[in-house]
Amino acid sequence: MGFRVGRDITTNTAGLDATARKGCSMAKRFINNPDDIVTEMLEGMTAAWSDTIELAKENGRVIVSKAFHGADRVGVIAFGGSGHEPAVVGLVGDGMLDVAAVGEVFAAPGPQDVFDAVRIADHGQGVLMIILNHTGDMMSSDSALNMAERENIRVRRVICRDDISKYSRENISDRRGLGGATFLFHIAGAAAREGMSLDEVGDIVQHVADNMATLAVANVGATHPTTGLLIATFGENEMEIGIGNHGESGGIRLAMEPADVLTDRLMKMILQDLDMKAGEMAALMVNGTGSTTLMELSIIFRRASQILEESGVQMIASCLDSIFTTQEQAGFHLSVCRMNDTERRLWAAPCCAPCFKQ
Amino acid sequence: MGFRVGRDITTNTAGLDATARKGCSMAKRFINNPDDIVTEMLEGMTAAWSDTIELAKENGRVIVSKAFHGADRVGVIAFGGSGHEPAVVGLVGDGMLDVAAVGEVFAAPGPQDVFDAVRIADHGQGVLMIILNHTGDMMSSDSALNMAERENIRVRRVICRDDISKYSRENISDRRGLGGATFLFHIAGAAAREGMSLDEVGDIVQHVADNMATLAVANVGATHPTTGLLIATFGENEMEIGIGNHGESGGIRLAMEPADVLTDRLMKMILQDLDMKAGEMAALMVNGTGSTTLMELSIIFRRASQILEESGVQMIASCLDSIFTTQEQAGFHLSVCRMNDTERRLWAAPCCAPCFKQ
Repeated sequence: MGFRVGRDITTNTAGLDATARKGCSMAKRFINNPDDIVTEMLEGMTAAWSDTIELAKENGRVIVSKAFHGADRVGVIAFGGSGHEPAVVGLVGDGMLDVAAVGEVFAAPGPQDVFDAVRIADHGQGVLMIILNHTGDMMSSDSALNMAERENIRVRRVICRDDISKYSRENISDRRGLGGATFLFHIAGAAAREGMSLDEVGDIVQHVADNMATLAVANVGATHPTTGLLIATFGENEMEIGIGNHGESGGIRLAMEPADVLTDRLMKMILQDLDMKAGEMAALMVNGTGSTTLMELSIIFRRASQILEESGVQMIASCLDSIFTTQEQAGFHLSVCRMNDTERRLWAAPCCAPCFKQ
Repeated sequence: MGFRVGRDITTNTAGLDATARKGCSMAKRFINNPDDIVTEMLEGMTAAWSDTIELAKENGRVIVSKAFHGADRVGVIAFGGSGHEPAVVGLVGDGMLDVAAVGEVFAAPGPQDVFDAVRIADHGQGVLMIILNHTGDMMSSDSALNMAERENIRVRRVICRDDISKYSRENISDRRGLGGATFLFHIAGAAAREGMSLDEVGDIVQHVADNMATLAVANVGATHPTTGLLIATFGENEMEIGIGNHGESGGIRLAMEPADVLTDRLMKMILQDLDMKAGEMAALMVNGTGSTTLMELSIIFRRASQILEESGVQMIASCLDSIFTTQEQAGFHLSVCRMNDTERRLWAAPCCAPCFKQ
């Protein structure tokens, strides 16, 4: 019997500070054996969303959109560690991802899993692979690309690098991927569904990736669901701007401030990074990372949309939801994505993934 | 400057125990002045979801579906305190609620707000009012019904009493309303959109209300977003079955147990209450109440769906999401709703509220 009640909190604490070691009630989980957490999650999701998704027969870590069966077009895939739900499993469906692969909690799937996803997504027209820039994901992706080349499967890769917190645009290759990936997933899925070629889909999605910027904020850390350990700690009145998708620190630690003051600070950095000009069009996204309420996310969205208006930027689309999470971490990703008419049209296209519908 | 950083945690603590008084980092909020929290939330939501919803001109606490303008049919309304987002604001839209009214955090809107919602929802064919059974909501509802009668507006009321934790079916009038209200909202909206009469819609929705059962579980309490105070406390290894929508205690306190053991326990109570028989059809819902992850909710859904199958009950619909929340409370509502062919068809009908789409 391995359910999580704090039993393991005092083990495996090397490198963690006292706050992490003492554990907290957030480590209580509604799970069974921690070793089965991903398998059982996937069984639950495919049971709940059986109209839309299924597990691939050849690989129980690969999720396939039922709408993709027999489709004569480019396939769109993404992958990543588990623990960020609904991403990526809940984003598989018509108009979004055709195939996805997941790893264990916060661990990229292996090269074979990613390659299996590529193979399943290739219906003869090639595969668009969208990847969030993290070391493990890049390694699996590189290996899978080599395997695909050997089997003459055409793969075009777009790397999501929307986190502007640490690196300038000159060093964009070092930027990490955050919730802005949602823009890429749906625009790719909508473009592929229209029958565009791999190069056409790839060019559009790369252009979107080059025109977005995200900042992540957190103020309460999450616990790792299989170990029960805290993955980030904060002082009583502290938050961090620039935190990673897995609670990685290295950003700016500040005292809490009113939502409007914080949003002003973030939007200034984002609009500067994008060099946004009055008259341009943009989509605005506030993505919750776990326990931050929709009430708070709405208050942040409110101020961010006001700033767009004050800047003369036309908000042509919006997303207010929790899509890329870090378990129960309190915080959010604030993203702006500049869009042209084509991208706007594709973003507005219908979509029926289990956790992203429009 | 009134943002939440724990500053107010030591005030207004009458009646709370030591654990609540000491506060915790969960009280850190991304808000501005706590007095503006509902107003700013509504401004943010209507900015993000401007295609779908708007505030009524005559009352800033009443939210109207844009799809309802000019519709010649029954109107469907619901209302409740704020703090349970996305419910109810995110559930206003085509195929769900036409009009909703919200109060302050965890406080029912007043009679005038509810009556304004009724008046706006009456397009000459009458209004179906769905209400979750809580004292404040019932009081506002009773007064609003009197006001409607004086103005000759026909209102049919269906009371959601799906919480089976404390009272038997013989005492169903004492049962509280929980997340099962989602079933009522969408089936009502779909039936009204088909042009059914008020009595027809009311009969169907009442029948659904009579055929569902929910149990709520929590293991980590939430904080009140305007006061910062903990609204429920739990021991290190403790959970409660039968907790209220606002953290009200009075249920059964137990030690944490594996998700499958807990789900078996809950489903046994639910299926007994419903007197479910092999061969019947049912919808299954797992609704997260805040910080419990979709990973955990999926693991609970997995076992609950297995139990339906083992019982010979056909799962004809499912919902796996966080719709009725209690701020960042960790926990979930598990609901089963027996459905006939008509109800199944209505539940499967399209819906495009901001936070409930199909």
